[in-house]
Parts: sequence; C-alpha cells; structure tokens
Amino acid sequence: MTGTANRPVTSSTVESMTRHRSIRKYTDESVPEEVVEAILRSAQAAPTSSHKQAFSVVRVLDPVKRRGLAAVADDQEWVEECPLFLVWCADLHRIRVAVARLDAPMVHENVEEFLVATIDTTLAAATAFAAAESLGLGGVFIGGMRNDPARVTEILGLPPLVYPVFGMCLGYPADDPWLKPRLPLAVVYHRDRYDDSGYPAALDEYDAITHTYYVEREGENRVTTWSHEMARKFAISQRPHMRAYLESQGFVFD
Amino acid sequence: MTGTANRPVTSSTVESMTRHRSIRKYTDESVPEEVVEAILRSAQAAPTSSHKQAFSVVRVLDPVKRRGLAAVADDQEWVEECPLFLVWCADLHRIRVAVARLDAPMVHENVEEFLVATIDTTLAAATAFAAAESLGLGGVFIGGMRNDPARVTEILGLPPLVYPVFGMCLGYPADDPWLKPRLPLAVVYHRDRYDDSGYPAALDEYDAITHTYYVEREGENRVTTWSHEMARKFAISQRPHMRAYLESQGFVFD
Repeated sequence: MTGTANRPVTSSTVESMTRHRSIRKYTDESVPEEVVEAILRSAQAAPTSSHKQAFSVVRVLDPVKRRGLAAVADDQEWVEECPLFLVWCADLHRIRVAVARLDAPMVHENVEEFLVATIDTTLAAATAFAAAESLGLGGVFIGGMRNDPARVTEILGLPPLVYPVFGMCLGYPADDPWLKPRLPLAVVYHRDRYDDSGYPAALDEYDAITHTYYVEREGENRVTTWSHEMARKFAISQRPHMRAYLESQGFVFD
Repeated sequence: MTGTANRPVTSSTVESMTRHRSIRKYTDESVPEEVVEAILRSAQAAPTSSHKQAFSVVRVLDPVKRRGLAAVADDQEWVEECPLFLVWCADLHRIRVAVARLDAPMVHENVEEFLVATIDTTLAAATAFAAAESLGLGGVFIGGMRNDPARVTEILGLPPLVYPVFGMCLGYPADDPWLKPRLPLAVVYHRDRYDDSGYPAALDEYDAITHTYYVEREGENRVTTWSHEMARKFAISQRPHMRAYLESQGFVFD
C-alpha cells in the first residue's frame, strides 16, 4: 500500500456536509426547476440494493395537502412554509407492477424486502439532501410523517406496498443555527471489533458538551444533556401504530 | 416567490453523485487516515432522527475477519481486497448504556425504533459514501452482510440492539464501469398525489433501455430487462432469517 501523497483529503462536498444544520426558516425564493431536477437526478443516481430503486418521491405543492401534512407533523409550520416539500416513500408497488406484467410471482413477505425498500429510500433521500445543501439550500427531515402515516397515505394516494419514510423541507436558508455537537468519534467508530469500554467516559464528556450547548442555546431554564434527552425520548413507546399501519399497506414482518 | 436568477443549478457534489457507479476493483493504494477521518466526520454530521445518532461503524482491518465477512457475502472478493471496508451498524445499544446510567427506563420494543436506527445508519452511510466519492474514492455497498448477520455479529462482537445493515467497500478505482441506467424520472417522481398511470409505458421504455444495457455489457447470452431482473430477484423469499435474527439481537417488531 503506497503512493497516497497526492490524494485530496477534503472537498467542497465534505465541507458542505460537515457544516450541516437543520434549517427550518427559508427566504421566500422558490427553488428553480433546474435545481429540483439536479436534486432528483442525484437521488436517482444514489446506490440502490440490486438495482431495485425501491423508492418514490412525492413533491407537495397543493397548500391544502401541505396543511394536512403539517398537522400530521405536530404542526411544524415549516412543512407548510418551505418552498420545496418532498415526501420520500419506500416503494415495492412499482416492482409489483413490473413483475405482474410478466405474469411472474413476487415474494416480498419478509422483513428483508421491507428493509431494502426503506434503505433504498433513505440512500436516495440522503444523497438528495447533500446535493441540495451543495446547491445552497438548507432543510430538515420530517420523521413526523410517521406520526400518522395512514393520513399521509390518504393525502398522497399511496397504493399498497408504498409507505412514507419521512418528509423533507428544503429552501434557501433564512436562519443560521448553531452546529449541534455530535458524539465523540471514538464512540461511533470501532476497529475490527465493537468496543464499548470507552462509553462511560466518552458519554460523560459528551453530556458536558451538550449540557453547555443546550444551556447556551436555550437559556438556563433548560438544563439537560444528550443522555437526558435520550431518556426523555425513550420513556414511552414511540409511534406504536407503525406495525399495524405497515401491515395495512401490505408489508409483512415474517 | 422571486429572485431565483443567481442560484447555482449544479455543483461538484451533484456532478460527482450523478457519475456514481459501483466500483469493485481498486488500486493498491491505501486510504490515508485523513481521508478516513473526513469520511467519518461527514457521516457524523449527517441528519439524524431527534439527534439519536443511532449508528456505529466498524472498520475491518484484520484479514481473517475480512475473509470471514467475504464468505458471508457469497465470496465477493472485493470485501477481502478493498483498501477500506466498513460495516455500518444500526445501534440502540449506545443509547441503552446512556439511559441506564441515569437509571431511567428505555422503551424500544416497536418497529419505530428499529426503523429509526436503520434510517440513521443509512443516512450516515449514504453521506459517507458521497463524501468518499467526492474525494476520488469509489466503492460498493454490501447488502450481503445480511446473508448471515449472526455470523457478522459474531465476527465483529456486536452486542444486543446492534445489527449490521450493510458493508461498504472503498478504494481508489481501478475500473471504469458503465453508468447503469436508472428508471425514468417520471416513474419515481410524483406531484401532490402518487400517480402510476404512466407506469406501463415508462416500464416498456426502461425495459428496452436496460435490455440494451445488459446485452451490450454482458453479451448476447444474457437477454434480460429490469422487469425480468426484478422477477428473478423476487421469485423466492430473500433472507427469510432476518426476523428471527433481529429478534435474537433484541429488536422487537410490535
């Protein structure tokens, strides 16, 4: 292994990615169609499992639908206000159509194909998001679509074997929030074997960092840490309807 | 909505993404540590659900472990040969450690938290992959880790609430494969409402394009189309062990 001297160690892509913050306020500029197309072409070019390309994306323009989707997402107003709102959907329906045209059977009744569709959708969306940021846009993922996925399914007319994984707000930033501190790299990165022996000390360190972040960002009234935030988020079952909803859309967990 | 004239409609990120091909042959150059760090920093900066950051990445250097993982992936030799091999793992264990230190309960027994961990991992990995490509690397995702995830778990010492979503081979390309044609955009992109009325015609078009691609790439002995490939891949249940494996790791699908 030799000759590594002339390889770049950073890029405008890396610089853009490592500046990522969730952006929830936007200028009133619309996103030009060429920019939307560049984002979607990037999504389509993303890696995909066995070329299945098991995702669809629904762009929501209709203000009534926007209002309905914002209501699903606990009234996050940026779902209504953002210039470009996309709902990323895991999609095995398209493959079912293609396979049915060949009069062939389609066996998908397992966790694996649900996973593949979810992964393909997320690969495409993450690639699209990084593309958008590289074009000067900012945005935020809206997991809140899963608060009431049946309602999203109704609003967007999603057929069986399609489900909304998340939404995505995009627009030109009118806000410049702080970078949110990430876990220490050593907590996330392992060599050859998963090793959590450093977790207690590293989590102490990270809780101190996030404590400062939350205090300085939110004021003294909110004294918390990453660990406390995780305890709060995992105190009750989140979105316990997901299994029944997904089964109603034809996804099977055998 | 005004003033869109001066916004960029492409970027080096978009150019790099839309040139994506899976690369399975690499020069013998190692990947400099600064490059590995840039890739991992990009992964960590990726969007994450409620700041859960529910992923870990295991870099595999040990040739014996590499051999074992290649065997899991149907002997894809690039798993052994690539300069940088990463296994991306969905990880709720770290959060469990953090929450347990507060003597708080952690409720994760539902499809939703399994999904969140899988999505967080895929967001991080897709971002890392695009970062790597922007630095001149090429690679390929290895879904084949899920052929025998219990063996991967053993090789990497993964604790409960951690599972390998996929592997990722990276290195400097020693191959220049064709761009693989993607589905027509109209098949993937919907406005306001999912509309599959154009699928038959669009799939005819795409099958003609992929037929040409497979014939010219693989020679006349392989006459197939995207639809035929999908019928082949969905003819039998894929990885039917996944549900039992995931439950053995503590993931619950209620």
